[in-house]
Amino acid sequence: MTYCVALRLTEGLVFLADTRTNAGVDRIATFGKMKVVEQAGERVIVTMTAGNLAITQSVMNRLAEGVELDGETHTLKSVPNLFHAARLVGAAMRAVYATDGAALAAQDISFEASIAIGGQVKGERQRLFQVYAAGNFIEATDDTPFFQLGEHKYGKPILDRVVNKTTTIDEAIKLALISMDSTLRSNLSVGLPLDLVIYRNDTFKVALQKRIDSEDPSFRVIRERWGSALREAFKSLPQPDWT
Amino acid sequence: MTYCVALRLTEGLVFLADTRTNAGVDRIATFGKMKVVEQAGERVIVTMTAGNLAITQSVMNRLAEGVELDGETHTLKSVPNLFHAARLVGAAMRAVYATDGAALAAQDISFEASIAIGGQVKGERQRLFQVYAAGNFIEATDDTPFFQLGEHKYGKPILDRVVNKTTTIDEAIKLALISMDSTLRSNLSVGLPLDLVIYRNDTFKVALQKRIDSEDPSFRVIRERWGSALREAFKSLPQPDWT
Repeated sequence: MTYCVALRLTEGLVFLADTRTNAGVDRIATFGKMKVVEQAGERVIVTMTAGNLAITQSVMNRLAEGVELDGETHTLKSVPNLFHAARLVGAAMRAVYATDGAALAAQDISFEASIAIGGQVKGERQRLFQVYAAGNFIEATDDTPFFQLGEHKYGKPILDRVVNKTTTIDEAIKLALISMDSTLRSNLSVGLPLDLVIYRNDTFKVALQKRIDSEDPSFRVIRERWGSALREAFKSLPQPDWT
Repeated sequence: MTYCVALRLTEGLVFLADTRTNAGVDRIATFGKMKVVEQAGERVIVTMTAGNLAITQSVMNRLAEGVELDGETHTLKSVPNLFHAARLVGAAMRAVYATDGAALAAQDISFEASIAIGGQVKGERQRLFQVYAAGNFIEATDDTPFFQLGEHKYGKPILDRVVNKTTTIDEAIKLALISMDSTLRSNLSVGLPLDLVIYRNDTFKVALQKRIDSEDPSFRVIRERWGSALREAFKSLPQPDWT
């Protein structure tokens, strides 16, 4: 399994991904699920992948080699804008489905993959998309400014309650880490270390790219404090008058 | 879908269930999922059901009529103890599977049902079990003093972080309501009103049985305050020093 979360805020974009891949509980490994394309001053495009690792690696390799779309071959370094980038990821997904789909189906393996792609290319605003296994995709909006991939349920309540487009990047980093922590605690197939990337709107360079492991003092403090803050928050609630 | 949570604490037992049943998003209805058997001074046994409504209603009807186990026919009013009660629920589940399983399988409908059963019968301690669709079951212990049925993920992090066997009933009521609120917000197929039952250890009578609707002032206050308490808890977290 996997847990990735991406937020599209007025201030910029926040991406956080775990790194655990598993085939059964007795076969786990660490694979980075985040890739960054950066051409300073011109573009930053970040992808995060979830689903069948063989599929998502194939998609990312095809993207690196170049994928044909509308008669032209592009990579994420050459696409003219983010919408085109999302379409290119979709085209790569469909190309993998065309080559692998039947063989997977013959062995009852479902074609599971989803990819978040966000960033900014000079000339347009920052954007964030989520591409499905069929190659179609949706875009984050002001109403719903975040996407989650993979094991999304444990970490969703805190995001639902707090996140909106005016959430600051500093707040969003903490929220993403809390959301991830809830998921790490509840699903063994989501695991450390984490990959974090921050992009500030209109800067066309990565503001922060960091791998966070279990020893990271700041993450440890957030995990511990959040537990006690939750318990205190809970204690502050009034008792129902019918008890 | 459904969300039910049952807690087995030193002080007693807390049961909370939603009441929404749905077949697709355009066919929703209210069905109570909780049943209480009370013989004051002698026994209290509470059941909560999740899964296919036709299956769980059949199971409950069979239990009301009497189910054969070890050559004797019992209902929850006559079983000698809680272990026997859980076995009886399992036997009812297997009887429904024997009559309906093949017909459901022929139409690719999976046999989905789970039932929490807890309470106390004079002569033994309070106990809490979760019965699976195959009629087998597990019991809550001091290590894991709660069970969730149905859509359990959204409401699990708060329970994981706060609940232990020494949690008081008053605390557990609030925790169950918070856990339910997170689920209500995230899954449309879990819905109000809620059914709550409280049993205090060694009393052999129901301490509180209450239906909670959206207008309930205490539940409204808890929902509102929890949102703001969470936001404050989150704001109290320190900023990672690498941001």
